[in-house]
Amino acid sequence: MTKKGLFVSFEGIDGSGKSTQARRLADSLTARGYQTVLTREPGGSAGAEEIRALVLQGDPDRWSAETELLLFTAARRDHLERTIRPALAAGQIVICDRFADSTRMYQGLSRGDLRGAVDQLHELMIGQEPDITALIDMDPAAGLARAKSRQTVEERFEDFGVTLQEKMRAGFLALAQEFPDRIHVIDGNRPEGEVAQDVLAAVDSCLP
Amino acid sequence: MTKKGLFVSFEGIDGSGKSTQARRLADSLTARGYQTVLTREPGGSAGAEEIRALVLQGDPDRWSAETELLLFTAARRDHLERTIRPALAAGQIVICDRFADSTRMYQGLSRGDLRGAVDQLHELMIGQEPDITALIDMDPAAGLARAKSRQTVEERFEDFGVTLQEKMRAGFLALAQEFPDRIHVIDGNRPEGEVAQDVLAAVDSCLP
Repeated sequence: MTKKGLFVSFEGIDGSGKSTQARRLADSLTARGYQTVLTREPGGSAGAEEIRALVLQGDPDRWSAETELLLFTAARRDHLERTIRPALAAGQIVICDRFADSTRMYQGLSRGDLRGAVDQLHELMIGQEPDITALIDMDPAAGLARAKSRQTVEERFEDFGVTLQEKMRAGFLALAQEFPDRIHVIDGNRPEGEVAQDVLAAVDSCLP
Repeated sequence: MTKKGLFVSFEGIDGSGKSTQARRLADSLTARGYQTVLTREPGGSAGAEEIRALVLQGDPDRWSAETELLLFTAARRDHLERTIRPALAAGQIVICDRFADSTRMYQGLSRGDLRGAVDQLHELMIGQEPDITALIDMDPAAGLARAKSRQTVEERFEDFGVTLQEKMRAGFLALAQEFPDRIHVIDGNRPEGEVAQDVLAAVDSCLP
């Protein structure tokens, strides 16, 4: 089989516009005749959505960081097997709103000592990185204002103020330095259309 | 803190009588004045029971072996944190119906290639073995007859006939050879009381 799809992920702080940009990229590529699959994490497959619900519902303290990491890895494995890999094998373009970088960033933020376990678990049970990651970099205060202006499900991550947003931004930028070939930092503090153009330019060079 | 509890696990094929023996051991030790916690896997804590339900309900093929392994490890981590470790720290005796050996055996049976991942995952995210494991060894045909005579929840494992029971028995005996200091093989093909006496004798030497 010579078909080979492309796996694109979007990362960024809450309110960075990454979900909007993921949708725009899917629309642009579909308009150009590519078969695209727009998906998200946590979730993205029937089983992973059930695991997502189990993690996100209820008391935020009911799972330890370690148990949560295992549950999110289980969800990612299901998503990978049932959604991402079949699409890539069919030569499609997978566009995923958040992937493993979000886990690295969030765990690094709250439990930096778990980073080694995060990496080993990823290598052992996931073993797949996106071909290209668009990190939508955004002013933390502006991102927070935007995130607060809408009602999102992920409230537990969006209610900790600008200090947390700053730490998240720093965490993502550190990952961009760690994976400079894969992660493209794109300035999100501009009109949506301009950001979308930069995303498309970055992805363009990788298109099959 | 000088208090140190004891962690006892029971393993064996379906119908081996391990759950009965676990209960009898708990009763004997309680009667002797020990504080005991009788628990089971998968499950054994509120969160782990929810994960158990997610794994065991629905189509048996809806999770891959890898995803199921991650979910069971998440359940075990929760069980360990919320039930087992607090009890051990309080100097209590934890008696657990199935633990990591069941995972090793079941995964080895269906997906022997995953044994390395099973072990690495255990080391990375669990890192705890029982102090002593009672393997109730049972004639596969007799075990199957007993398992079939009752209505149990674990039907998905109990409906594959005597060949599977034979493989399970061989799998457990191989584990006993792998961990000879920890796993005590106890002949379960005898009256319940005699088996219970042997279990108690094995555990007795480890009591705090």
